Amino acid sequence: MRAHVAFTPDETASAAVAVVVDVLRATSTIPQALAAGYRRVLCCAEIEEARRLRGEIEGSLVGGERDAVRIDGFDVGASPREFLEPRADTLILSTTNGTRTILRAAERCQVVLLGSLLNLGAVAEEVRGRGEDVVVVCAGFKGAFALDDAYCAGRIVALLGAERSDAAIAAELVAGSFADAHTALLARTYGPPGLEEDILFCSRESVLPVVPRLAGMVGPAAEIIA
Amino acid sequence: MRAHVAFTPDETASAAVAVVVDVLRATSTIPQALAAGYRRVLCCAEIEEARRLRGEIEGSLVGGERDAVRIDGFDVGASPREFLEPRADTLILSTTNGTRTILRAAERCQVVLLGSLLNLGAVAEEVRGRGEDVVVVCAGFKGAFALDDAYCAGRIVALLGAERSDAAIAAELVAGSFADAHTALLARTYGPPGLEEDILFCSRESVLPVVPRLAGMVGPAAEIIA
Repeated sequence: MRAHVAFTPDETASAAVAVVVDVLRATSTIPQALAAGYRRVLCCAEIEEARRLRGEIEGSLVGGERDAVRIDGFDVGASPREFLEPRADTLILSTTNGTRTILRAAERCQVVLLGSLLNLGAVAEEVRGRGEDVVVVCAGFKGAFALDDAYCAGRIVALLGAERSDAAIAAELVAGSFADAHTALLARTYGPPGLEEDILFCSRESVLPVVPRLAGMVGPAAEIIA
Repeated sequence: MRAHVAFTPDETASAAVAVVVDVLRATSTIPQALAAGYRRVLCCAEIEEARRLRGEIEGSLVGGERDAVRIDGFDVGASPREFLEPRADTLILSTTNGTRTILRAAERCQVVLLGSLLNLGAVAEEVRGRGEDVVVVCAGFKGAFALDDAYCAGRIVALLGAERSDAAIAAELVAGSFADAHTALLARTYGPPGLEEDILFCSRESVLPVVPRLAGMVGPAAEIIA
């Protein structure tokens, strides 16, 4: 069993299993929503696709953001703290980085799982149980390296006990350099300010037992189930 | 002044200054050759281009390798230990990763410098003196993350005192995780075995005062001068 880390979606390598990591916030929000009772999450890259699906699917709710601001006319934003209770069967979510990264991983890997600090223990246990080669794919920020995702990737690698690529070794060294997850997430330099409460929420470790996985496509959306 | 690190050539971002890093071995071999007395190094991606230039340019020597083995018919290999004394005016070198990375950097940056551990102090001083935004571009291995280049990038960043991107912070954390350069270079997992003596040679820090820079193109080759 070999573990590799792609620090950006473009570096995604072939492997039996991919774990997509977008700590702030898609892969934190999705396990939170599934754990709360949503049956599935449909991830859309485009706002218009999400709006259309909302009209087509009964019992759905649409959430999303651009630059951390809720999209006009959407039912909710994309903060995991908005999904503590289920308000629908299907959550439609528009996350540019996350969806793109999930689809990139699906091109190269048979199984696509979603990981964050919230489900750290569960996702590592799932990958260990499969015993197959894994690539942890960081969503990053607009295609570039993001420290929070690299940190989480390193935490996952550290729990696998697998043979490591150069990037997997580096991710583990980065993760080991921070006293705790909250400190690591606060060290990031990119993106808009104002996410302090979400950062605190997403810094909690192994509080959710769910491992979201890609089930297939629903039109232009990636369908994620627990 | 802002410092960024591209862990692979594809991540190269725009900046006033690029420092290309290919520790094993192109950006160690080139400053060594220039310090020894070669006037210039012409970097070719293709073996046939190097052969042709060797025939066209009087007083030239051609070196290169594929998978760490000297190319058939070439005068020398690509080990920095082969360039302790000048044997010609022009060294023609065929290094796939290195040349590709230099050209990628030239597309996005006004100034392209070459850095390694051998010229660590000199290249950092040059970048500090310019005071402009810099991206350290790791050549990596076949497009992927390489621990030796990331280590060297982190060492360079640590000497700049610049504002750092997420990737620059991560590179510095990786560099700070190793007791010394030799240990870091031995930790890499990619590539062919058998480079032990070159690894030891390339682990020496700030022993060369030269900062190689891209002067322009000579046909398909990147012309590097001190």
